Amino acid sequence: MTISLYQASVPAFIRALNNLAAILEKGAAHAQARKIDESVLLNSRLYPDMFPLVRQVQIATDTVRSGAGRLAGVDFPSYEDKEATFQELAQRIGKTTAFLQSLQPAQIDGGEDKTISWQSRSSTRSMQGQAYLMNHLLPNVHFHVTTAYGILRHNGVELGKKDFLGPA
Amino acid sequence: MTISLYQASVPAFIRALNNLAAILEKGAAHAQARKIDESVLLNSRLYPDMFPLVRQVQIATDTVRSGAGRLAGVDFPSYEDKEATFQELAQRIGKTTAFLQSLQPAQIDGGEDKTISWQSRSSTRSMQGQAYLMNHLLPNVHFHVTTAYGILRHNGVELGKKDFLGPA
Repeated sequence: MTISLYQASVPAFIRALNNLAAILEKGAAHAQARKIDESVLLNSRLYPDMFPLVRQVQIATDTVRSGAGRLAGVDFPSYEDKEATFQELAQRIGKTTAFLQSLQPAQIDGGEDKTISWQSRSSTRSMQGQAYLMNHLLPNVHFHVTTAYGILRHNGVELGKKDFLGPA
Repeated sequence: MTISLYQASVPAFIRALNNLAAILEKGAAHAQARKIDESVLLNSRLYPDMFPLVRQVQIATDTVRSGAGRLAGVDFPSYEDKEATFQELAQRIGKTTAFLQSLQPAQIDGGEDKTISWQSRSSTRSMQGQAYLMNHLLPNVHFHVTTAYGILRHNGVELGKKDFLGPA
């Protein structure tokens, strides 16, 4: 047996997004219970030149919608970066999950050696499918979900590793 | 084509550890350049009930040495948690990488449906090989490397996403 490229990507992305959504729900509940303006949490960051929470969530969704779209060789949706509430972030995550669920294994499977090219902020990047998933997409989405978790933890939201890992 | 369980695990773990080692090197250089006692960084954390940097590194190595050992069905080394310097953490990472490099694809491949059982802090856990890798090991190691990165960033160490992702 082996793992298909679809199995190693889309379900893992959906899982990470579901966990992120649950983490943000706890952040929203924390803000509401303590009468904290939610924009305080959404604009919080771990260091002045790091991205704030809202941007971490935007990038997490961008990573998987563009990544899965490229692996599948299909157009992927683009979202304006204008969310200002936890509810709007939840909607963005929901739209992204719906897009991921629309992808079929046959669109992705077998693309381990397919060359994936994309435009980064500074250059044109190119990787083969398997390396793109293992070295770029999975670490990246876990990075942004972890950083969102870290920002909320740093602000006193009661979260534990189980919230990050999700249901067993 | 598909991805083998070995390819989706051991090289990804080694890559994450190499990136962690490079991140810690920058932390050590930062402390030295600014005459900061390195124990200040090593004991820094994002919130009082989160683990400090030194423990994040210990858990990152524990995750992959036990995880890869269980996937391969072999005994894995155990390390005392007594590191007190960046150099000692680098040695722990080096020992872990050497163990990972000793594992052969044939020991791990085909174990997607193998039941993996282990004792967590509170209970006996059990997952199948593929879910253990995708839902537990990979998110976990990325979580602890990201949190180590976040702690150092929060303390002003100059790091960027490229340090986390590693060489292209």
